[in-house]
Amino acid sequence: MAHPEKAVLLLSGGMDSTALLWWMRHQGIVTIHTVAIDYGQRHRIELEASSRLSELAGAAAHKVIALDLTQIGGSPLTSDAIDVPAAEADQQVVTVVPFRNALFVTAAAAYAETVGISNLYISPVADDYAAYRDCRREFYDAMEASLSLGATQDTRVHIQTPFVEKSKVEVVSEGIRLRVPYELTHTCYEGTQPACGRCDACTERIDAFKANSLTDPIPYAIPIDWST
Amino acid sequence: MAHPEKAVLLLSGGMDSTALLWWMRHQGIVTIHTVAIDYGQRHRIELEASSRLSELAGAAAHKVIALDLTQIGGSPLTSDAIDVPAAEADQQVVTVVPFRNALFVTAAAAYAETVGISNLYISPVADDYAAYRDCRREFYDAMEASLSLGATQDTRVHIQTPFVEKSKVEVVSEGIRLRVPYELTHTCYEGTQPACGRCDACTERIDAFKANSLTDPIPYAIPIDWST
Repeated sequence: MAHPEKAVLLLSGGMDSTALLWWMRHQGIVTIHTVAIDYGQRHRIELEASSRLSELAGAAAHKVIALDLTQIGGSPLTSDAIDVPAAEADQQVVTVVPFRNALFVTAAAAYAETVGISNLYISPVADDYAAYRDCRREFYDAMEASLSLGATQDTRVHIQTPFVEKSKVEVVSEGIRLRVPYELTHTCYEGTQPACGRCDACTERIDAFKANSLTDPIPYAIPIDWST
Repeated sequence: MAHPEKAVLLLSGGMDSTALLWWMRHQGIVTIHTVAIDYGQRHRIELEASSRLSELAGAAAHKVIALDLTQIGGSPLTSDAIDVPAAEADQQVVTVVPFRNALFVTAAAAYAETVGISNLYISPVADDYAAYRDCRREFYDAMEASLSLGATQDTRVHIQTPFVEKSKVEVVSEGIRLRVPYELTHTCYEGTQPACGRCDACTERIDAFKANSLTDPIPYAIPIDWST
């Protein structure tokens, strides 16, 4: 598969998007613009990690786009209270911000168009789409179609998801091979350093390193048995 | 065509979306949530008009979502300077914010999901899609597909564009029939009251009233000959 010369990457500063950044460099993509979304995270460590990793990877530019999702609907990642209007009978409990990835990709596509780039990279992995419908390739195929139709000029927008069929375990394996500086990535939902070691995100991360018989280089607030 | 009982409407406070609001009431849509996007407009009159018209129409809720497009790319509507990174050879001049409607509709869809509504209304008219690709029905068909695939639950998101085949002149004609309070709508790009009467938006508006042999009820800063 041929790779574009330049691309925009949604870089959260987590382990998957950082591995994708190193993968893109390895594929010979020369000009990479990284985009981090400031969506109203309770913790800022993630945004700082994204910026530092972008610079370390020699990205051509790093763009932070503020999309305040806290105003749209409650989410454990952005608020403690659900701030929607009076409840209706059929209202579902909101546990994630709806259309989060659609908003992130569309914002990144808007930025990409202003700098003349038509290839967007995003790092959903196979583990994600069990829980999130907007992590499936089918969804990105549909978004490619709608963004291509909605672009200012008649053009083709490409959304590249090289890890969408890989498990998180496989992505860590690949990342280690590519010398990804995992010590600089941030994963913990609590946003603490050392990482809490207990939240779902920490648990997934720890398991992915263990499955590769590796020790995660970041410090944890609780003892982790890396031998099991 | 059957209409839903409840719906979300993107209400800018301009003449087309306001006519659509009155049209929706006339179709018997009982519960209407209006959404206005605060995208960093240089003038706030538009947002105030949207809020006032929503209340006057008896909407169930009015939601303002801030999406600061000024940070993504320059546009005459949001900034005087183009703030993109160092120019590249193939960089096009940015005259509109790319994917503006895609972002607006996706944000409205996210809000709609939190309140259990799957029908979104937006008011592109036939005159718009000569200039803007994201005002064509084809684009909204594609967005329906991608939003349906990306929704939290397996569902069908509907994007309704009842005016997409109508000219602005026809929409004014329909609006007058429906007693739309055009005196409360805002159109002028300059964001002044009285309206400047010279900008593209004012010119289009004036022409639409003239074509209907009507006088626009809003005041203009310059004399307008309504008889021609």
